[in-house]
Amino acid sequence: MKRYEGYLLDLDGTLYRGNEVIPGALEFVNKLKDSGKPYLFLTNNSFRTPEEVAAKLREFGYPAEADQVVTSSMAAAHYLKEEMNSPRVYAIGGNGLRTALKEAGCELTDRKPEAVVVGIDLDFTYEKMKKATLAIHEGARFIGTNGDLNLPTEEGLLPGNGSIIAGIQAATGVKPIFVGKPESVITEVALDKLQMNRDKLLMIGDNLMTDILTGVNAGMDTLLVYSGVTSPEDYEAADIKATHVIDDLRDWDI
Amino acid sequence: MKRYEGYLLDLDGTLYRGNEVIPGALEFVNKLKDSGKPYLFLTNNSFRTPEEVAAKLREFGYPAEADQVVTSSMAAAHYLKEEMNSPRVYAIGGNGLRTALKEAGCELTDRKPEAVVVGIDLDFTYEKMKKATLAIHEGARFIGTNGDLNLPTEEGLLPGNGSIIAGIQAATGVKPIFVGKPESVITEVALDKLQMNRDKLLMIGDNLMTDILTGVNAGMDTLLVYSGVTSPEDYEAADIKATHVIDDLRDWDI
Repeated sequence: MKRYEGYLLDLDGTLYRGNEVIPGALEFVNKLKDSGKPYLFLTNNSFRTPEEVAAKLREFGYPAEADQVVTSSMAAAHYLKEEMNSPRVYAIGGNGLRTALKEAGCELTDRKPEAVVVGIDLDFTYEKMKKATLAIHEGARFIGTNGDLNLPTEEGLLPGNGSIIAGIQAATGVKPIFVGKPESVITEVALDKLQMNRDKLLMIGDNLMTDILTGVNAGMDTLLVYSGVTSPEDYEAADIKATHVIDDLRDWDI
Repeated sequence: MKRYEGYLLDLDGTLYRGNEVIPGALEFVNKLKDSGKPYLFLTNNSFRTPEEVAAKLREFGYPAEADQVVTSSMAAAHYLKEEMNSPRVYAIGGNGLRTALKEAGCELTDRKPEAVVVGIDLDFTYEKMKKATLAIHEGARFIGTNGDLNLPTEEGLLPGNGSIIAGIQAATGVKPIFVGKPESVITEVALDKLQMNRDKLLMIGDNLMTDILTGVNAGMDTLLVYSGVTSPEDYEAADIKATHVIDDLRDWDI
C-alpha cells in the first residue's frame, strides 16, 4: 500500500456526526499528529472562522489549530485575490466569510461591487437577495462558497448555501462560480499551505460527491470512509471512484 | 370578427407600464364599462389586496372596483379551499395573501401546517425559508402563487416570487404547485365570478408566456397586445399562438 506524506481531512461525517465523535477517527488523527505528517481540515462551512472551526474540533478531542483549517470562505478569498486582484465585494454570509475576504484585501460594500460572494447566511433577507440580484445584473461576478443544498442539523435538513444561491441564480439567470468542495480552488489553498506535491497527499472523506470528487478534480489520491453520507450501495452505483475505500479509519495505516 | 361578451384583462404592460398609463388602454376600458359588458382584472401580484389593486387602477383613471380584481393570492385561497378543505397554512407573503387565505377559512400558522403557500415577500428571511423547508420535508403541500422570476420596478428587475420559490425548491427537492397565471386555477376564480361560459370570454395581455398561455390553458380566446413584454419577433419565434394580435387597444372593437 502506498504511504502518503500529508493528509486532507473532511470534518462532518468523517470526524464527527452531529455532536458525536466518529469511532476510530479520533485515534487516527492523534496517530497522524504523533507521526509528524502534516494534515489539514477542509470544510465547506463558510460561516465559521478557522479559529472557530479548530475550537470545535478541539472540543471533540481532535488536535487542531486554526492554521490547519481551510474553509470555503478562504477559497473564495483566494479566488478573488488571484483572479480579480481583491475587488470590491458584496458579501452575503457570516463572520467567517467577511473575515476571510477582508484578510484578502477586499473592500466589503453594497455600492457598485465588482463581485457578489454568497455563503450560508442565517440572517439572509429579501433585501440582501435584491442587492445581489441588482449587482449581478450590472455585471458583478457571482461567486458561491459552496453549492450544498442542505445543512444537516439537529432540527433537520435546513436550507444550505446552495439553496440561497438557487434563488439568486433564478432571479439573475447567472450561474455562480463555486470555489468550495468539490471544486479545485479549495485544494489550491491547501496545497499553498502545505507546499507539498499533490501526488504525496491523500484526501479523506465520507461524501463521494464532495470529498472524493474534490480529490479527483485536484488529481490527488482519495480515501472514502463509510462513516457518513455515502453508503456502499451508493458507491457501487456511482461513476466516481475513490483510490481506497474503508469502513472505519481504524483500518487505515498511516 | 367574433364579438366577446366578457373580458379578462392583464394589468402591467397592458394597462400601464411603471407609472404611465398605456395609450389606448384607458379609452378601451372606459368603452368596455360604457358597453355594460363584464370585465375582470387578472394579476399575479399576490402582495396587494383586491381593494389595493383597484385603488391603484383608479389612480391611473381606470374604472375598477375591488370585486373586479382576481389575484394569484385569491387563486391560492381557491385551491386550498377546493382541494384541501381550507387547511392549516404556513404563508410567506404580504397582506394580500394573508387576507385571501383567512377569507378562505385557512388557519395561518407555523406549527405543523398542512400546506406552505409562497407569494412575493419583501420581508423574506432565512428563518421563513427554514420553516417552509422543514414543513415541506414533513409533508406539507408546497404551493406558489406564481412563478414569475422577476419583479420589474423602477429600481430594476428585482427577485420575483419564482426566485424565492426556487430557493425553497432547491432546499426541499419538491416542485411547487402554481396557481397564478398561466395556470388555470386563477381563471377558475374568474369564471366563478362571471358565471359565464368560457367561449364567450376574451383574455387580453402583453405577455405571451403568462397572459396568452393562461387563455390557452383555460380554453379561452386570447388577444396579444404589443404594449409590453412580448415583441413581434418573440411572437413569430414562439409556439404558443394568440387568437388575435394587435399593436394597440385602440385597434380593438368591443
